[in-house]
Amino acid sequence: MTGRIILASGSAIRREILDGAGLDYEVMVRPVDEDAIKDAMLSERARLRDIADALAEAKAMRVSRQEAGFVIGADQIMVMDDTLFDKPKTMDEVRTRLLSMRGKKHELIGAVVICENGVPVWRHMSRTKLWVRDFSETFLEWYIETEGEALMKSVGAYRFEGPGAQLFKKVEGGFFAILGLDLLPVLDYLRVRGVIPS
Amino acid sequence: MTGRIILASGSAIRREILDGAGLDYEVMVRPVDEDAIKDAMLSERARLRDIADALAEAKAMRVSRQEAGFVIGADQIMVMDDTLFDKPKTMDEVRTRLLSMRGKKHELIGAVVICENGVPVWRHMSRTKLWVRDFSETFLEWYIETEGEALMKSVGAYRFEGPGAQLFKKVEGGFFAILGLDLLPVLDYLRVRGVIPS
Repeated sequence: MTGRIILASGSAIRREILDGAGLDYEVMVRPVDEDAIKDAMLSERARLRDIADALAEAKAMRVSRQEAGFVIGADQIMVMDDTLFDKPKTMDEVRTRLLSMRGKKHELIGAVVICENGVPVWRHMSRTKLWVRDFSETFLEWYIETEGEALMKSVGAYRFEGPGAQLFKKVEGGFFAILGLDLLPVLDYLRVRGVIPS
Repeated sequence: MTGRIILASGSAIRREILDGAGLDYEVMVRPVDEDAIKDAMLSERARLRDIADALAEAKAMRVSRQEAGFVIGADQIMVMDDTLFDKPKTMDEVRTRLLSMRGKKHELIGAVVICENGVPVWRHMSRTKLWVRDFSETFLEWYIETEGEALMKSVGAYRFEGPGAQLFKKVEGGFFAILGLDLLPVLDYLRVRGVIPS
């Protein structure tokens, strides 16, 4: 049995994860007003994890209404001191963000929603804890220079699979979840549905 | 402060891990009679974790006796039903190994030893648990055909960072440890010694 898999995300690391696992899939990204969803939910005092879930669903639904197959939507938010953080938008914000994370714990909440024929058929949440070490200015300069604008592509201003690993003293949680797509549960659902060989 | 880092391992994934983290290092591999060490220790009923540690040390020492700098040696063994498993040597062994792992838990024990001027100065162990799912023959054929001889390069006949992820229903432990080099503690030691910026 096989079936069409569509990744509704433009994230390079999510593609790398699915490529690594050996999946055949397509990438289709349709615009979603993420800020509007986020702001509306924050003003309704929604739980932060529900925001990640809603964003993952919105991305998958947007594609699934028009395309047959199993559409994977994913989102990841960063939470520190009970506050939600977006991707930094400038290199100044990158620096401020990293300094605010120094010596502290933060969490990454990941949501994956799979839609089929315009209906969400599966959803999954992951939560990982990461402790940033008390890094020096010397390290920070090296890190920002090494990674550059790539740092604006991640909620935490780091690629854990890259030099970002040097930021941490400890992490708790699965690697795939930290990267932004908790792979094993996704594979499990695709097998249950006969989309990939079990 | 900087210092010379040498990786005493020819493993591609260990290089990928250090490259990813943005480290400057050299690779130097000198032959070590791993089977002799393993057999001697097994006949003395050594603990399996001590065997991984001894192999990591032997690889690092062999280079460190002749080269200045911080020499990283690493080893990983697979344990299932209290038995130590080596890398499969033929594709027949790959198939038998995978079938023996099906539906069962196994552990990966990882050892890292850093030597300096011919003396071990730091050592670290990691232990990860992995549950292989009850996969079908169809999956096994696809998997072996997709991965081919790469499967003989790993003690468990899988690349977890590749299609090997499809073998598992659950894993407990850090991703870097599963891949064969528990990165965060290594970085921590290199910072303490001033080899990389803290």
